[in-house]
Amino acid sequence: MQIEHSLYPFLERLARAAGEAILPHFRTNGAIDNKLDGGFDPVTAGDRAGEAAMRALINAEYPRHGILGEEYGPENTDADEVWVLDPIDGTRSFITGLPTWGTLIGLKQANRPALGMMVQPYVNEAYAGDGKSAWYSGPLGTRQLKTRACASLSDAVLFTTTPRIFKPVELAAYDRIEAQTRLARYGTDCYAYCMVAAGLADLVIESGLQAYDIVALVPIIEGAGGIVTSWTGGSPVDGGRILASGDPRLHELVLKELAAVPAA
Amino acid sequence: MQIEHSLYPFLERLARAAGEAILPHFRTNGAIDNKLDGGFDPVTAGDRAGEAAMRALINAEYPRHGILGEEYGPENTDADEVWVLDPIDGTRSFITGLPTWGTLIGLKQANRPALGMMVQPYVNEAYAGDGKSAWYSGPLGTRQLKTRACASLSDAVLFTTTPRIFKPVELAAYDRIEAQTRLARYGTDCYAYCMVAAGLADLVIESGLQAYDIVALVPIIEGAGGIVTSWTGGSPVDGGRILASGDPRLHELVLKELAAVPAA
Repeated sequence: MQIEHSLYPFLERLARAAGEAILPHFRTNGAIDNKLDGGFDPVTAGDRAGEAAMRALINAEYPRHGILGEEYGPENTDADEVWVLDPIDGTRSFITGLPTWGTLIGLKQANRPALGMMVQPYVNEAYAGDGKSAWYSGPLGTRQLKTRACASLSDAVLFTTTPRIFKPVELAAYDRIEAQTRLARYGTDCYAYCMVAAGLADLVIESGLQAYDIVALVPIIEGAGGIVTSWTGGSPVDGGRILASGDPRLHELVLKELAAVPAA
Repeated sequence: MQIEHSLYPFLERLARAAGEAILPHFRTNGAIDNKLDGGFDPVTAGDRAGEAAMRALINAEYPRHGILGEEYGPENTDADEVWVLDPIDGTRSFITGLPTWGTLIGLKQANRPALGMMVQPYVNEAYAGDGKSAWYSGPLGTRQLKTRACASLSDAVLFTTTPRIFKPVELAAYDRIEAQTRLARYGTDCYAYCMVAAGLADLVIESGLQAYDIVALVPIIEGAGGIVTSWTGGSPVDGGRILASGDPRLHELVLKELAAVPAA
């Protein structure tokens, strides 16, 4: 993949280390812990092993860089360079054996998403970008990622993990938008954003995201020609309510529907 | 894979031929035709090429066998041996670039599902069974498939393609069951049944299926120790309302909820 960022070779090392740590836990019916009182927020030994492997490499090579990860606490997050890690995005897919999960590795520089990768070690494919270009590498070879043109909702393919992530006021707006699309798909996690970057889908609408769910994906979508913002058009860097689009014209149009949604 | 059925080597040839025909169409943003007036039932050149490749082999090697496929008409379906083919189960996943679609190849003998395979040529994995045993082959090697024990809904992981496949009376029963499970996942198509066979999930509840959506999967789930029936406990061979379970005790329990659902 032809990504020029000076930290890209190190990002590839992180991806390999995470994959080697996580894959032995896939499809093993291993123990699943629940992080959420009164709900179900699963975490597995694969999550912990993947994040620990990446943290060890970062601490060894770039001890001044910050780290924000899903499974362990924040480290040195006022540094200029902060790695944003989700070892298994799509833990529900992981624990049920589906291949639609991925390891998210993002780098913020001066609080902007500068470099990111989604890597899927079972399928052996990766999507990476630096905001200027974005690349796929996997069973089909190496290809540059380009979003596709799609200026109207009636032509659009929309992804969301599940409508059940939305609070009631959010769901009303989501349903209004979904009803106008050509096709909506659920259960996709990080794959949704990569498929928008690949020009195979047009929109992702989600809410309640954490920073580590989205930071790695921003340089991929932007590098492919798309756009990611909050529902009010602001920075997506802290997660929350997120809209990602392959075509900036479609993004403008959907923002008009979403920007008016009141705080839940 | 150690499957003893005399037609298993031929089934493997069909799987290879289908994969070679379909994979060049994956992630190409090729033309999508709509088969359904007033709805969206997509069909791609990949569907047609995959089924044509399998039909050509069957016609050449076993001209007296019957064929029931999604894309072309039935052929000689009163034969003792009938091949039941869905070149791309999960066309919505296929057209949006997700790897959770598969080629389904089933064989009915005397109208009973006798042999079946789900093969995913992009991930390079396959699940096959003959009702006596079932096997996985893929990135993790070759493994025998065994369902897991799960005797109560509160422990169960439930799959369905989307709750929107259900008619209103069906949805009420489905929602009642889903509310009692540990976890429900959508958007899975044939992977749902294979994950039940692999002991990574416990239940699949669907309705409106065609014969070619289910026949290939029955010998896999049964070979792994599970059970597949209609919602009233009858044969699943013609599709319709389908319940698949890894643990026969769970199956009995869910049938009690589903058997009372009136015709929609």
